[in-house]
Amino acid sequence: LPSKLPAGKTSIFSVMSGLARKHKAIDLSQGFPNFETDNHLKELVCKAMKDGYNQYPPMNGIPELREQIVSKIENLYGKKYEEASEIIFTAGATQALYCAISAFVHPGDEVIVFKPAYDSYEPDIKLAGGKPVLIELKGKDFKIDWQEVEDRITSKTRMIVINTPHNPTGTVLSKSDMQQLEKLLKSTNIILLSDEVYEHLIYDDEQHQSASKFPGLAERAIVCASFGKTFHNTGWKMGYCVAPEVLMKEIIKFHQATVFCVNHPMQRAFAEYLKNPEHYLSLGNFYQQKRDKFLELMQGSKFKGTPSKGTYFQVMDYSEITDEHDVDFAKRLITEHGLATIPVSVFHKDGKDHKQLRFCFAKTDETLEKAAEILHKL
Amino acid sequence: LPSKLPAGKTSIFSVMSGLARKHKAIDLSQGFPNFETDNHLKELVCKAMKDGYNQYPPMNGIPELREQIVSKIENLYGKKYEEASEIIFTAGATQALYCAISAFVHPGDEVIVFKPAYDSYEPDIKLAGGKPVLIELKGKDFKIDWQEVEDRITSKTRMIVINTPHNPTGTVLSKSDMQQLEKLLKSTNIILLSDEVYEHLIYDDEQHQSASKFPGLAERAIVCASFGKTFHNTGWKMGYCVAPEVLMKEIIKFHQATVFCVNHPMQRAFAEYLKNPEHYLSLGNFYQQKRDKFLELMQGSKFKGTPSKGTYFQVMDYSEITDEHDVDFAKRLITEHGLATIPVSVFHKDGKDHKQLRFCFAKTDETLEKAAEILHKL
Ligand SMILES: CSCCC(=O)C(=O)O
Ligand SMILES: CSCCC(=O)C(=O)O
Repeated sequence: LPSKLPAGKTSIFSVMSGLARKHKAIDLSQGFPNFETDNHLKELVCKAMKDGYNQYPPMNGIPELREQIVSKIENLYGKKYEEASEIIFTAGATQALYCAISAFVHPGDEVIVFKPAYDSYEPDIKLAGGKPVLIELKGKDFKIDWQEVEDRITSKTRMIVINTPHNPTGTVLSKSDMQQLEKLLKSTNIILLSDEVYEHLIYDDEQHQSASKFPGLAERAIVCASFGKTFHNTGWKMGYCVAPEVLMKEIIKFHQATVFCVNHPMQRAFAEYLKNPEHYLSLGNFYQQKRDKFLELMQGSKFKGTPSKGTYFQVMDYSEITDEHDVDFAKRLITEHGLATIPVSVFHKDGKDHKQLRFCFAKTDETLEKAAEILHKL
Repeated sequence: LPSKLPAGKTSIFSVMSGLARKHKAIDLSQGFPNFETDNHLKELVCKAMKDGYNQYPPMNGIPELREQIVSKIENLYGKKYEEASEIIFTAGATQALYCAISAFVHPGDEVIVFKPAYDSYEPDIKLAGGKPVLIELKGKDFKIDWQEVEDRITSKTRMIVINTPHNPTGTVLSKSDMQQLEKLLKSTNIILLSDEVYEHLIYDDEQHQSASKFPGLAERAIVCASFGKTFHNTGWKMGYCVAPEVLMKEIIKFHQATVFCVNHPMQRAFAEYLKNPEHYLSLGNFYQQKRDKFLELMQGSKFKGTPSKGTYFQVMDYSEITDEHDVDFAKRLITEHGLATIPVSVFHKDGKDHKQLRFCFAKTDETLEKAAEILHKL
């Protein structure tokens, strides 16, 4: 039986969360909050079911939610997408990323991906027959070297994938980054895939620089976003993407084939819930407190890291503790100490040991305290 | 911008339901019920959300639901699938079909599809680079000519797609059909994709012949099923598929890439709800009454058809009424008469006019009565 992805493995997030469940470990591995989504939002889902929204919604989503998102984007980023033809709801941002890559990457095409990278880009590219072109982020603050990007662009470059705020490093792209990218892509046909699932989780004096904000990017960008990461319900599997109609037309062919449409009562609930922008505007503060709490708790431990500027992840170096490979150390942390994290080397896949762990701080203070207690003993 | 599916169109089901919404027509087109899913089931979803099942479930689904389905299949069809490795939940059966086809169909592979056929098989096959090999069902009762199937099998045949109960014709495969297929596939490596989303909607003295029942088929079969079609909640987008581990291993790679996992609170709700088998065992009777009601209402009209044996569709010939092509007739029925149906020619795509419409009878008696009133005037 020939395989389309012979080296395809179970995602590290499944593996670590599975191990965490098995060993009843404190789970700071896979990116999800362990506190509750708003009761009001749950009630809106119940109301939608009660009101009879239980059959197929339109393939591209209900107009009420499309309108909400389109005006949210216009308000935040100044770009007006067409509600009828430039947005679809997806079964999580995962499905949006898959459809975007599948629709445009043809066998032999090159796709630029920055390392460390979220673990679904590369398999998606390979499944489409494309070739990932890997560029390392530079230095302690994980900067993109735009000259290197320019040098690596070839006639085969079909797409560039960016991710801001960035998983796992917690860095964010600056306005100047986006302008350099805009300049670079100007005279090309390269498509930009912008993974912005953590758009509202941004800290200190940083501002989210959405690809939608920059006309020279927006005209060629597929922007992917997540309801789950934003509203503490990753298990509802709801996301969306926006793109110019000429791109969306092709994405929709894969959307129709892969899932056809997504959960109707949950679309209704979000359409109502989003009427109050506070629900997402307050998130930066909320998660910044979580990050601060975690960093404070980690003070005096042997784990060192630059404070995360976005996402709900904090990467920390543990080389003062052990020489072990981060994959081994992460496994031992679960089995011997009852704490699950993600070893950062899996985001690099360069064969090197990066001696870093990624901690998800989207957890109750109590959980963070228990985790810190374990980590201080190491 | 080269397209992966240049001729890819919006599904007829979206088009007709969209037109129905626009013209406020009575909608017997896209396959979904217009009566409510069980309140108890909605309450179970609310309870699951309240109990905190709102974050990522395991990638292949929660064990409680996997166990329920595996034992349901064992009870009904006598085949025991491994709960840990031979079942996944999907975002509707659509996603299961997509992943199954994508995982195994390589460029140049042939896939046998029987016409008339549900409209997602062919695009899925083409997106994978495969070649659909179309075989017409024969005669008024839409039989498979197994000799023809044997003749059309080549060294490139990777997969055969069957669908029982059959959409749109409402026919079902017999035990003898399945045995002939079993014999035919015995000495081959051909994979069987069995679309059984209407498994519980079966009428008169017919019995559902699941591929899972026949060892020579089950060993090579991917069986796709739907919670939405079974429990009157097509808008929740929940389905599943079962397959031997050697096949499931490859399907899961696409599952992980396309959606990663599916709705957690709804998995919890189904796990609880399925404890009472009456919830699905009673469906045959329930829908047989709907079919009978519809056929009774249509008596004396100029529409003629053989009673459907399964699914929630009834196909009827209208050639006594008009010479119009069924696509034109169906559109005119919406715009001039306020009634939406599906023209059967779209399931054939052979360029011919089949002069038949498909009616979805999964509707309240009141809706069926209003529809019949319109149809009697033609
Ligand atoms: C879809 S599971 C992965 C969750 C996540 O974004 C992460 O842990 O990085
Ligand atoms: C996924 S939309 C199609 C619904 C259906 O099964 C049909 O109408 O045939």
